[in-house]
Amino acid sequence: MTMEQFEGYTYAEGGVCAAKGFVANGLNCGINPDKEKNDLGLIYSESPCAAAAVYTQNKVKGAPIIVTQRHLEKSKNTARAVIVNSKNANTCNADGIPVAETVSELTAKELGIRAEEVIVASTGVIGQPLSVEPFRRGIPELVRGMSADAHTEAAKAIMTTDTVKKEVAVCFEMQGKTCYLGGMAKGSGMIHPNMATTLNFITTDVAISADLLKEALSDIVKITYNCLSIDGDTSTNDMVSVMANGLAGNREIQAGDEDYQCFRQALYIVMVNLTKMLAADGEGATKMLECTCSGAADQETAITVAKSVVGSDLLKCMLFGEDANCGRILCAIGYADADFDINKVNVELASPCGRIAVCQNGAILPFSEEEAAKILAEDEIYILIDLQSGEYSVRAWGCDLTYDYVKINGDYRS
Amino acid sequence: MTMEQFEGYTYAEGGVCAAKGFVANGLNCGINPDKEKNDLGLIYSESPCAAAAVYTQNKVKGAPIIVTQRHLEKSKNTARAVIVNSKNANTCNADGIPVAETVSELTAKELGIRAEEVIVASTGVIGQPLSVEPFRRGIPELVRGMSADAHTEAAKAIMTTDTVKKEVAVCFEMQGKTCYLGGMAKGSGMIHPNMATTLNFITTDVAISADLLKEALSDIVKITYNCLSIDGDTSTNDMVSVMANGLAGNREIQAGDEDYQCFRQALYIVMVNLTKMLAADGEGATKMLECTCSGAADQETAITVAKSVVGSDLLKCMLFGEDANCGRILCAIGYADADFDINKVNVELASPCGRIAVCQNGAILPFSEEEAAKILAEDEIYILIDLQSGEYSVRAWGCDLTYDYVKINGDYRS
Repeated sequence: MTMEQFEGYTYAEGGVCAAKGFVANGLNCGINPDKEKNDLGLIYSESPCAAAAVYTQNKVKGAPIIVTQRHLEKSKNTARAVIVNSKNANTCNADGIPVAETVSELTAKELGIRAEEVIVASTGVIGQPLSVEPFRRGIPELVRGMSADAHTEAAKAIMTTDTVKKEVAVCFEMQGKTCYLGGMAKGSGMIHPNMATTLNFITTDVAISADLLKEALSDIVKITYNCLSIDGDTSTNDMVSVMANGLAGNREIQAGDEDYQCFRQALYIVMVNLTKMLAADGEGATKMLECTCSGAADQETAITVAKSVVGSDLLKCMLFGEDANCGRILCAIGYADADFDINKVNVELASPCGRIAVCQNGAILPFSEEEAAKILAEDEIYILIDLQSGEYSVRAWGCDLTYDYVKINGDYRS
Repeated sequence: MTMEQFEGYTYAEGGVCAAKGFVANGLNCGINPDKEKNDLGLIYSESPCAAAAVYTQNKVKGAPIIVTQRHLEKSKNTARAVIVNSKNANTCNADGIPVAETVSELTAKELGIRAEEVIVASTGVIGQPLSVEPFRRGIPELVRGMSADAHTEAAKAIMTTDTVKKEVAVCFEMQGKTCYLGGMAKGSGMIHPNMATTLNFITTDVAISADLLKEALSDIVKITYNCLSIDGDTSTNDMVSVMANGLAGNREIQAGDEDYQCFRQALYIVMVNLTKMLAADGEGATKMLECTCSGAADQETAITVAKSVVGSDLLKCMLFGEDANCGRILCAIGYADADFDINKVNVELASPCGRIAVCQNGAILPFSEEEAAKILAEDEIYILIDLQSGEYSVRAWGCDLTYDYVKINGDYRS
């Protein structure tokens, strides 16, 4: 995946432990019968953090979502730790909430913090009972093994059908202090975030008020994770959390000033890269799709059009087949639930190896099939839409629809 | 496919020619290079018809849609003929409208009627030029060969990736007169109708005013075609037209009385069966899915929930894999954009061989995997949702998502 460069920010190693004062760990505690695979992850900050989270808008909410919401309310948006398991979503079962509470308490006890300082999350199969026994056995060892080097073990613990771990961190200067912000995410199916996304955990050593942290997260989730669709299915357990422990030593950001913009940009860089990683590792995907809708009269229109295109099954199959059936792009633009003039729409098809115009003012142009085939043979495809009706521009991300998506989801439970 | 029985109505042979006074034909005129496949179809009524049509809500509208709208306006909702081609959608190209006008004129001239009495339609690849030459050559022969027996040739002419032709007709009594209503439809991809559907042509010998015909069509399309999704893609060329020539001899239906209800029911029976045929023959499908949402506070809620379930890619893969991963049903109910209490939702899974409860009051129940596997092995699957919040009930239809859907749409153009 191509990592975009942003002036004043450099990519760093360390994932969720790039920021000062954060440690992590991951291991197999027996929820996943495959002992080679981590199923339990932990992130811990040595000092208290301002915390913000956004959650799935699905009416079915996983028990951990409900418990985390309660914790952050009780702790007045502070947190010290994240505990997360994979292989079982702890959702739509009979006693999910007591289980999530017990997991939080076990974690808190071992770390010497309060249960309401724990963010708890789960991912995996929906509607199955989850025993607390594996947690009881695993958490002490998990805590004993915590270190700043073990961030990758934590990132592995949230993988389900993911084929690669997803970590990004960025380094930047603020008030002469070196600051870090890093995150980890899981994909890779049931992904069509609505006001939140899959499991994404972000840490930073910047000092910032909880209110501003929430504001930045809500703004940026709208143009990153919420512009991602793997399969149109909004999960029940989506969550993005950010923890800021202030150890970088900057004066706490309390208003929408230059420092806030600097922090916001760091958050954007990490979240947009995680989003693209999720798209590239969509279940069964062989290609990442980035669709840019520019020239829109407002942001909402640009989002709606770009998401309509990345969500089209027909278009996704066409990408997989590397067939430049560009009428399907127009079709998906046309059924977007937004107000614009279809007769002004221009479309270009691009990839790292080239770029061609395929539609002008709503009509398909003649184009070189050879050139189109070359573009579609790449594994990052860009669709560039210009509505020619305004100044707003938004990107959305997705992937192709493949035999493997069908295979993976025909027998996910087994 | 199971044909439901309705008291007072019997299924009849004859498709669009079941009603008195209608003839039809179909042939290959050279748009489809495979000479074995019909690509041009015609339906003709020996006497003038009241006509009504609904069209795609996609902003990209095929040229034939625009021309047909103009014709029905000019003719004050009367029509005599339908001319339809497959293999080229005549959409998003440079001169689609003049081509559709010329095709109408050629048809009208050969039949001795006016061009505005012609309903013109196209289906196939979007964004390619369409020559009128094949029509010029084919229409005279098409008209010469018209007969009441050739309805199947017409039904074949609108097949694209369809594997079976789709015709239904029904016979019923009104005012002591025997009446017929029949239709034909095409599938089988880019199907997620919005206020209209794929190409569907319905004929009847009932005498009814154009206004009431339009009212009945609009009501019924909402609970039949518009509750169908094969792949979430709303086509650019969707159209349903109904032509009523009055040859059954009944007094013209002019008000919402008992006769209107009788006619409306006939229209429902034909449209619901065509809808189910489209679902069963969805691109690559091995199973038809019917989802009933009952206990809803209003019709809109029931439609939204049922359509959300049949539209879930994950659920569709699960059906293909015959894996009772029922959390996915709950997940899709939960992200439906409607207002209801998720904690009151009950779900049953059924097929012709059995029925089991899988969810009660929003929580997954323990169920026999053996029984579930037996149910999912059938090729008609029913998901029965009860919101326990009201009296409204609606059905929606879809199919599984398979390797073949991906294959078909990876190389549709070639």
